[in-house]
Amino acid sequence: MHIERSANVDLARYWETIEKSATIGVGRPGGLARLSLSDEDRDMREIFAGWCADAGLDVSFDEVGNMFARRDGIENNLPPIFIGSHLDTQINGGRFDGIAGVLAGLEICRTLNDLGAQTRRPIVVVNWTNEEGARFSPPMIASGCFAGRYQAEWVRDRVADDGARFGDELERIGYRGAARCGGYEVDTYFELHIEQGAILDHAKAEMGVVINAFPTEGMLVEFLGETAHTGPMPMELRKNALAAGARWLAAVDDIGWHHRENGGKATAARLAAWPNKPGILSETATAVCDVRHPDGNVARQMGQQMRQAAVDAAARNNCEVRTLDQWGYGGEIFDGQVVSLVRDLAVEFDVEWMDISSQAGHDAYHMATCCPTAMIFVPCKDGITHNNKESCEIEDFSAGLKVLLHAVVTRANRDGQ
Amino acid sequence: MHIERSANVDLARYWETIEKSATIGVGRPGGLARLSLSDEDRDMREIFAGWCADAGLDVSFDEVGNMFARRDGIENNLPPIFIGSHLDTQINGGRFDGIAGVLAGLEICRTLNDLGAQTRRPIVVVNWTNEEGARFSPPMIASGCFAGRYQAEWVRDRVADDGARFGDELERIGYRGAARCGGYEVDTYFELHIEQGAILDHAKAEMGVVINAFPTEGMLVEFLGETAHTGPMPMELRKNALAAGARWLAAVDDIGWHHRENGGKATAARLAAWPNKPGILSETATAVCDVRHPDGNVARQMGQQMRQAAVDAAARNNCEVRTLDQWGYGGEIFDGQVVSLVRDLAVEFDVEWMDISSQAGHDAYHMATCCPTAMIFVPCKDGITHNNKESCEIEDFSAGLKVLLHAVVTRANRDGQ
Repeated sequence: MHIERSANVDLARYWETIEKSATIGVGRPGGLARLSLSDEDRDMREIFAGWCADAGLDVSFDEVGNMFARRDGIENNLPPIFIGSHLDTQINGGRFDGIAGVLAGLEICRTLNDLGAQTRRPIVVVNWTNEEGARFSPPMIASGCFAGRYQAEWVRDRVADDGARFGDELERIGYRGAARCGGYEVDTYFELHIEQGAILDHAKAEMGVVINAFPTEGMLVEFLGETAHTGPMPMELRKNALAAGARWLAAVDDIGWHHRENGGKATAARLAAWPNKPGILSETATAVCDVRHPDGNVARQMGQQMRQAAVDAAARNNCEVRTLDQWGYGGEIFDGQVVSLVRDLAVEFDVEWMDISSQAGHDAYHMATCCPTAMIFVPCKDGITHNNKESCEIEDFSAGLKVLLHAVVTRANRDGQ
Repeated sequence: MHIERSANVDLARYWETIEKSATIGVGRPGGLARLSLSDEDRDMREIFAGWCADAGLDVSFDEVGNMFARRDGIENNLPPIFIGSHLDTQINGGRFDGIAGVLAGLEICRTLNDLGAQTRRPIVVVNWTNEEGARFSPPMIASGCFAGRYQAEWVRDRVADDGARFGDELERIGYRGAARCGGYEVDTYFELHIEQGAILDHAKAEMGVVINAFPTEGMLVEFLGETAHTGPMPMELRKNALAAGARWLAAVDDIGWHHRENGGKATAARLAAWPNKPGILSETATAVCDVRHPDGNVARQMGQQMRQAAVDAAARNNCEVRTLDQWGYGGEIFDGQVVSLVRDLAVEFDVEWMDISSQAGHDAYHMATCCPTAMIFVPCKDGITHNNKESCEIEDFSAGLKVLLHAVVTRANRDGQ
């Protein structure tokens, strides 16, 4: 049941899957533009499902399109080990973000097959739908649904900028499953991901043990004004929702600059006004901003400033403002035992590792709310992601994959329920 | 050749055309959403062309879809009198803006037919394409082309937010003519329009003699940044084009507030970023703003502040900025003689008239650069336009139409070349 300490994945085989993925939904040179629930997403799902089936895994998908490729254990009534991430990308995405984690799960199952190793608990490789939020807002929507944060019906009702409804696109590409999303116990969730930030790459470390998540607060708001002619309407009678939205984005950007010396950041992420045309004042504007700070208390202060800025911007431009969604995450969300296991394996295998914070959102954040969770980061050149220049070498994955393999097996085989 | 001083249009017949138009491209209650070169625009063009043909007018259209309905004069080699405006509307437009002016031209021709009156010069009723700019930017694009401001090929290359190209849509609806746009002499341009601002309505005046145009400066700029992950990227390395664009819009709005007590205004009109999504910094943002002030010198100062604000916003967010288009108009652009003629007729007909400034952009602004031009305003309830609540009564047009009729005939019949 146990595997040799020297056991390792087949790095070249893993790389082949990465390279095949890099041909599906090609974007700018070197990058991918594989938006969730697009034809290209479907094509990649089919290829992934085929690989999983060839590896003897049982492939299924749930009501929001999350894909599960299950390798049976010896005691299949025990909660499974999940290894997950996402196969969708940003519109100017790279070849590794998300993809590296899903295909790591597949490679680990293939390796266990080669070794003829059965595990006590089942292992499930997961592809979460629409992690990026590049097509449907919010990001990490389907892992959030699995974790009970969002209702499946609400998820399916999300509408993209191109007018497409999540649920309709899901059915169109043939990935609306009958199975309920979530609602059962998961033993442990692992996610391997490229770093986003140049910390490992610049430190020449082989692997990052993710110890916490950068505290983040964000919100989706709607400003409500009224259309009118831009020419004659005096300033004090205007209700220009676009001006209110722009004012909020600028104010949030300022919050980031104010806190930057201690590592704070703020992002003016999205502003979509209607009609958004010359000659007419805009009636509505939806906007997304977020703030981040390594110190959770400061992040919360920045969040409060962000919320106040929305109220102030609306007031300045005679608009109303509604909060449609807000979120906050970060801190010590990962499981101490599983994180220690990952670190101990890195030590045992003489990996040059370092503790690291996760600065971006990940499906693992939602999973951490419902089961013991750990993340492993691997180096990424200059930390550039969400850009076609995102770049990793095959060797960058060597240490992370070996540690992940043994961490998964250790968790899968441990005693107890 | 001359008509009786008591001669007047058939107001009820005019109103029927307004009401028919109000059924084509219906928008929100009471309003229209008849975007340029849409199916609804085509439907309205067909109806208008039919009316014109029934009135014995010769209907043609040019290479950018401007429609010309010509009533021959006695001396057809003389430059024609134009009566024009536009049949397209904003997405939340009313039933009168633009439409009232085109149909006024038709009604005047019908009236001259009834009177059996020939005029010395030909009279041409004009429907300018895409005045509103609600689909293709910039507004007043096709009258601008006629006046030599824009090249026809450039006009046809404009792309709407829905991805449609002006030239393709023009061909699709069957209104790409072979005739060159402009390039010939026009004797006089008249445009009747509802007021935009509540000056006539609140003063209980029957008609406005437009004496000048509110000085306006505007620009279309593009901010250029770089996509990156929103999480890890420190503030000082970010090149978020959306943040730069939002900062510019907020700064321009501030310029308007700063000058509001003396009648100044500024409009944050449009901001379109890409990818404009959570999780990724935006690479590009195109934005449109304008500033207006009754004092041309102040308007120019505000314009300078607007341009500087774009440079400052780009610098703050590490982006580059390019000016794609800029415009300035306003001042004493109308023809003294023709404006005096309009005023004299108002006096003669015992109309309660007042001098008024035009605060919005009009096709007449472009025409004023190539021929003697005058505008007549009629009252509009509370001055509300670019909104489905735009409202006029049949009587609101009575004085304006009579004055226009006699002004057109006077100009058409006058001596000289």
